[in-house]
Amino acid sequence: MNVIEAIEERRSIKHYDPDHSMPESDLAELIRLTKLAPSSFNMQNYRLLVIRDPELRGEIRAAAWDQAQVTDASVLFLMCADLTAHAEDPGLYWGHAPQEVQEILGPMLKPFYDGNNQLIRDEAVRSSALAGMTLMLAAKGLGYDSCPMIGFDGAKVAELVNLPSDTIISFMIPVGKLSKPAWDRGARLSDEKVVIYDKF
Amino acid sequence: MNVIEAIEERRSIKHYDPDHSMPESDLAELIRLTKLAPSSFNMQNYRLLVIRDPELRGEIRAAAWDQAQVTDASVLFLMCADLTAHAEDPGLYWGHAPQEVQEILGPMLKPFYDGNNQLIRDEAVRSSALAGMTLMLAAKGLGYDSCPMIGFDGAKVAELVNLPSDTIISFMIPVGKLSKPAWDRGARLSDEKVVIYDKF
Repeated sequence: MNVIEAIEERRSIKHYDPDHSMPESDLAELIRLTKLAPSSFNMQNYRLLVIRDPELRGEIRAAAWDQAQVTDASVLFLMCADLTAHAEDPGLYWGHAPQEVQEILGPMLKPFYDGNNQLIRDEAVRSSALAGMTLMLAAKGLGYDSCPMIGFDGAKVAELVNLPSDTIISFMIPVGKLSKPAWDRGARLSDEKVVIYDKF
Repeated sequence: MNVIEAIEERRSIKHYDPDHSMPESDLAELIRLTKLAPSSFNMQNYRLLVIRDPELRGEIRAAAWDQAQVTDASVLFLMCADLTAHAEDPGLYWGHAPQEVQEILGPMLKPFYDGNNQLIRDEAVRSSALAGMTLMLAAKGLGYDSCPMIGFDGAKVAELVNLPSDTIISFMIPVGKLSKPAWDRGARLSDEKVVIYDKF
């Protein structure tokens, strides 16, 4: 599927075939593509929780206003992020780079974030969203639909998945086979409202 | 371009042809596609600042560690978000929906966010990142390259663009014609580090 078509045809789908099971090869491809999303300093601070266990899915659905897509989609992705990724050895992220690049970027990473909790949190949300959007468009290319969701009790879901204290949940994305198309696409705001030229 | 190829071939490009000027039709198409990104409650809280003025670009470059892509790319997008979008009349976002949907969703919007400053901020960052990732892949499909950036003095750039007090800057995205390919792609962390199954 053409990338422009994928953007045009991606919709937030609520109704999925509950009997469809995603082949492992599709899941692996979806994960591979998601990991190609960019991240600040290449630190890949997103974490992908792949939830397939039916009992857990039922518990999460109960914590998500009983929305059917939580259990009916083939896979539920919980898009998380590690708030301590900037404190790791930069060699983990830059080991592939030329020595001179490593020497410039390596020492910048920790000081750039350290002590700036708002920036750390923003980066966690931003990175998981860049990965999540990549995942949703990759899913479209692989013949799946998806639905970004924030309508759930975050504290309850954190408890259900044993979320570590240094990790946040950003949003969830059910991915599966559509059983009923979306409504008409939500109307878009005018460019006058959303697009600004040069300065506010 | 196929969506999977677009994901695979998108790289964070630092070197652009400074003489290329983006045709208005390409800019309009890029904006149209970016606006198809999903947002919570369809509130489209992202704001796209399209910066082309050369003098302003130079000033922003000076506030961005003198990174050449800030001035050399054809267009500089500053991905912003409106922190008050949830307080607007929900009819602005849901006017297209069936009456019963409007009656359910309309009254939910403001109470969902009101008073929860962390959630409001997260949503601003998340929404602008979903839009930004869409923009970068759309750019690829239209024959352009891009580079998500947070390496700049946010307070200084806010001043330069007259950022309103209820709006945040999330990140910037130069978009233009590549003049020099990227280094090898940054190594990806192993699935063991990034992917978790069912529970942490």
